[in-house]
Amino acid sequence: MASQATGMFIAETHTEAVTWHFTIDKMLLEGKTRYQTYQICEIPRFGKSLLLDYNIQTSALDEYVFHECMSQPAMTLHPNPRKVCVCGGGEGATLREALKHSCVEQATMVDIDEELIAMVKEHMPEWHQGSFDDSRTTLLHTDARKWLAGQKGSGFDVILSDLPNPHAGGPAQFLFTKEYFQICADALGDDGVFAMQAGCANENYPYLFVACEETLRSMRDAFPFVAGYYGIVTTFMMPWGFMLASKKHDPLALAEAEIERRLAARGVKTRYYTPRFHRAMFTLPEYLIEARKAHGRVLTDAEPFAWEA
Amino acid sequence: MASQATGMFIAETHTEAVTWHFTIDKMLLEGKTRYQTYQICEIPRFGKSLLLDYNIQTSALDEYVFHECMSQPAMTLHPNPRKVCVCGGGEGATLREALKHSCVEQATMVDIDEELIAMVKEHMPEWHQGSFDDSRTTLLHTDARKWLAGQKGSGFDVILSDLPNPHAGGPAQFLFTKEYFQICADALGDDGVFAMQAGCANENYPYLFVACEETLRSMRDAFPFVAGYYGIVTTFMMPWGFMLASKKHDPLALAEAEIERRLAARGVKTRYYTPRFHRAMFTLPEYLIEARKAHGRVLTDAEPFAWEA
Amino acid sequence: MASQATGMFIAETHTEAVTWHFTIDKMLLEGKTRYQTYQICEIPRFGKSLLLDYNIQTSALDEYVFHECMSQPAMTLHPNPRKVCVCGGGEGATLREALKHSCVEQATMVDIDEELIAMVKEHMPEWHQGSFDDSRTTLLHTDARKWLAGQKGSGFDVILSDLPNPHAGGPAQFLFTKEYFQICADALGDDGVFAMQAGCANENYPYLFVACEETLRSMRDAFPFVAGYYGIVTTFMMPWGFMLASKKHDPLALAEAEIERRLAARGVKTRYYTPRFHRAMFTLPEYLIEARKAHGRVLTDAEPFAWEA
Amino acid sequence: MASQATGMFIAETHTEAVTWHFTIDKMLLEGKTRYQTYQICEIPRFGKSLLLDYNIQTSALDEYVFHECMSQPAMTLHPNPRKVCVCGGGEGATLREALKHSCVEQATMVDIDEELIAMVKEHMPEWHQGSFDDSRTTLLHTDARKWLAGQKGSGFDVILSDLPNPHAGGPAQFLFTKEYFQICADALGDDGVFAMQAGCANENYPYLFVACEETLRSMRDAFPFVAGYYGIVTTFMMPWGFMLASKKHDPLALAEAEIERRLAARGVKTRYYTPRFHRAMFTLPEYLIEARKAHGRVLTDAEPFAWEA
Repeated sequence: MASQATGMFIAETHTEAVTWHFTIDKMLLEGKTRYQTYQICEIPRFGKSLLLDYNIQTSALDEYVFHECMSQPAMTLHPNPRKVCVCGGGEGATLREALKHSCVEQATMVDIDEELIAMVKEHMPEWHQGSFDDSRTTLLHTDARKWLAGQKGSGFDVILSDLPNPHAGGPAQFLFTKEYFQICADALGDDGVFAMQAGCANENYPYLFVACEETLRSMRDAFPFVAGYYGIVTTFMMPWGFMLASKKHDPLALAEAEIERRLAARGVKTRYYTPRFHRAMFTLPEYLIEARKAHGRVLTDAEPFAWEA
Repeated sequence: MASQATGMFIAETHTEAVTWHFTIDKMLLEGKTRYQTYQICEIPRFGKSLLLDYNIQTSALDEYVFHECMSQPAMTLHPNPRKVCVCGGGEGATLREALKHSCVEQATMVDIDEELIAMVKEHMPEWHQGSFDDSRTTLLHTDARKWLAGQKGSGFDVILSDLPNPHAGGPAQFLFTKEYFQICADALGDDGVFAMQAGCANENYPYLFVACEETLRSMRDAFPFVAGYYGIVTTFMMPWGFMLASKKHDPLALAEAEIERRLAARGVKTRYYTPRFHRAMFTLPEYLIEARKAHGRVLTDAEPFAWEA
Repeated sequence: MASQATGMFIAETHTEAVTWHFTIDKMLLEGKTRYQTYQICEIPRFGKSLLLDYNIQTSALDEYVFHECMSQPAMTLHPNPRKVCVCGGGEGATLREALKHSCVEQATMVDIDEELIAMVKEHMPEWHQGSFDDSRTTLLHTDARKWLAGQKGSGFDVILSDLPNPHAGGPAQFLFTKEYFQICADALGDDGVFAMQAGCANENYPYLFVACEETLRSMRDAFPFVAGYYGIVTTFMMPWGFMLASKKHDPLALAEAEIERRLAARGVKTRYYTPRFHRAMFTLPEYLIEARKAHGRVLTDAEPFAWEA
Repeated sequence: MASQATGMFIAETHTEAVTWHFTIDKMLLEGKTRYQTYQICEIPRFGKSLLLDYNIQTSALDEYVFHECMSQPAMTLHPNPRKVCVCGGGEGATLREALKHSCVEQATMVDIDEELIAMVKEHMPEWHQGSFDDSRTTLLHTDARKWLAGQKGSGFDVILSDLPNPHAGGPAQFLFTKEYFQICADALGDDGVFAMQAGCANENYPYLFVACEETLRSMRDAFPFVAGYYGIVTTFMMPWGFMLASKKHDPLALAEAEIERRLAARGVKTRYYTPRFHRAMFTLPEYLIEARKAHGRVLTDAEPFAWEA
């Protein structure tokens, strides 16, 4: 019944409880940018997959789940998103999802890792599907927070914050703080919508998720409506959490029929975020509610989140 | 950034894509019954955990999620469950959840592995919490299907099928077939409710789940109402699937307020299955709906499910 | 004190007792030939390394140990080796060691895996060091046993059998039998010397080694002198075994001074096989002597060795 | 061809190049003393095995190899060892080997870890074989260096230093220095012999071995004769190194016949250290000689060895 390992594996540690050994059928490409190491490889069932710093980022199996969650609730909530900003978003798939909305006129993606994007453009076309070449797209390689700080009053309709988790000393640590969220609020228009990936939404490591929720909820003037939601990302082996913060529109008030109407009107096809499923995604399990009570706190530049190494 | 393993681990393979290496802080007990090997050990964050044949079964962290899912939707759906049967259910926690309903008068648990139950009684009191000693409980060590076949017309209100997955040649292979489900239907009363654990509900291995759904839905005369649902079991690193099949009551028609009323009236406290959360649990992601179209089939004794080894 | 794995690893199982997880710093090349899969990668401390079918074959750290053991004792024992045959020998390093002897006039290497050799020529120059282009070299891609069977009476001075281990059904199973050894004997001249790699020489898996020894010792007419020896191959994490079988010259009678004289006369420089060390290499630990008594048997085409999978 | 792990494993990291995953068939006992954690378990082929701090220490398969190497060369070299000291030596098997010599009148074992010894006495009888109860034995639980410092002039015939490797901050760091060796020299009689385990003797990590050799060779007044040697310890997956330092008798001058005579006269039976094999054990491979030139240095209390974590 017991058996031993033979083959090639990439090991990712998910808390001290468990390590995942992904079977690597084929290594397609590996390298290193100024910011991170990367591997593109074939994993059984997952198919083509990207790992950054030995953390699985996305796989052909269900990249649509993550990227629809990242983009579609915010895009759909806004009644007429024309001007969109994607912070981070390396593979170009968050951008792809935003561009599906025919009403979008300008999409700016700000990702600091130019080398990674160049690699992605060439080697991960299944993800970006030409989004980088869309005439509506502007691609910038600079620090997203710094750039957004200069966009106060620009009136973005939607900002999608698809950034790596905030490890201590890492490039994204100050992109999960109240100050950053305020910069986003200032760059949004009066009915602007902000969405962000917010880490694990399982019972093992809910800390980032509840801290993001607590922080955004503390900003009632900037964002009267805040709601956490999650997508079931098989590749991550857990539900993955997101936050939606909105100036004018309440995501929980968005009716199934209206979602259906908007997606149809804008020519958007989805596989995970469907009108029927919207409400379920925004219904958090009790353990996340309990975890917020126990571990929620306002993240600031002075006291940012620090992932336990 | 890379690091190597030092320590004690139990490895469980979940499809050819990934192997989980659980960190073992302390081995508390290990042994072997006629049917399976077992380990009880301490895993960081998960706490005290049980593994059978090197597959994690349950951990202190979130055993309540699995066992509430296994018991509470069916128990709550029945307007007055007095006579309950648990098939399998080794740790005694499914029984514990059923017994929470004060209206229960008789609870029969049928688990073939007497040695395992003896071990559980002594070493896993946090799970059974004395349920085996409840005056309403009858514990039988025999084949659940054979025993239920003799219970036709007994009028059980609820049958909870908490059995191991149907590996080819394994003890449970013929406890996931139409014939077995019919035996359950025949042992239930006119408004009886059947619930079962139905395996992975992630995008990686939805095959058992959709086959169980297809099979139960094919039995319209026995079970006019069939609904799949899932719980987020962090210990299993995925959403875990369950099926509910009902003769008279529609789980999707059960209102939040009525659930609240029933749980209160019967003195039931829950942490995962809450009135608020009932509907979300029964809202399946699209991939399970797609998977049923692609892979659903009626399981029979002649063509049972066989887990790929 | 305990820690978990993060990074890329290749796992090789060495008996059911232990699996080795090699850290992969960089994957340089991977592919598949008709006969085997291969990876060339960087391993810390080991440096550039080759794996075939997820078994480590050679590393920059100590390839010299294996390849000197494979070639030098036999080459040195022969008083004037002019005509040499290498069976197998993929990386070209066994050939390289043979060609060091300035007296060699013809060296024929017979390796069936043409695709692998093409890859090695391009990507492993540190191993072959141009040996394939040496004017004395003839490279053939055919079955070594079939080819040698046609060489009866050709009068080879030395035959070096550097073949993969004899897995059941694998390409080399019948290249570790009495019949094959006789074919080699027939292709050798009157004072010919045969050497072969003979697998693990540790206490965990001495079975192939002692079976080869038993088989060669049973062939007294062909090979009056037979001696097992070993090299400490750190990359293989064990002493690795070899057999030397000789028609006329006794390896145990070769004096340190004579070895020194021959190596100097032929312009051969070595790092592991030194005059001083010759005798120690041929002094087997007791456990190999005991294992031969317990497990030695004559390997034949009818009853070949079969590595336990 | 590739396969995944299922089962229980203990992982030990041996340099950053490789991690060993030992298959655990059965965990027999685990615990923790003031100084270290321990597991006694069944490993396939290795049999009953002891791990300390997740480092394999000894297995039933070949504990005789390590313990004969640890004791027999020194014991045999001394013409009449009556008074012996074992420093460390937890399992009692080094003591057992020393006591085999019928001439021994007093054997003092000094091991600081009283809890471990108590455990060993009860659970590892195959190792000590009653040595702790031998009337010649005195067992002390104190710091070996401190105790020996008080034994100046006691005239020990043989001191066997069977201590854990000198990790920085660990209990044995100052038991691998010139000052400690001098204390041993002072406690020995005029023809005293000192032997110690000296770590890995493979090409991957020869640093401790060559530093010990360099240090002892720098002490010409105390020890005119110093020789490194090694045993092939399959359980450690490498040759394991030892040092012998002697005041009057040269180990390289000890003839095979004399070894045979002494072992016979003293009633000593051995399996690994045999008269025939003595010389081979003391013949070091070139890479250890090269490594000493490159990495040898005198270890002192001021600049002790520090194992790279």
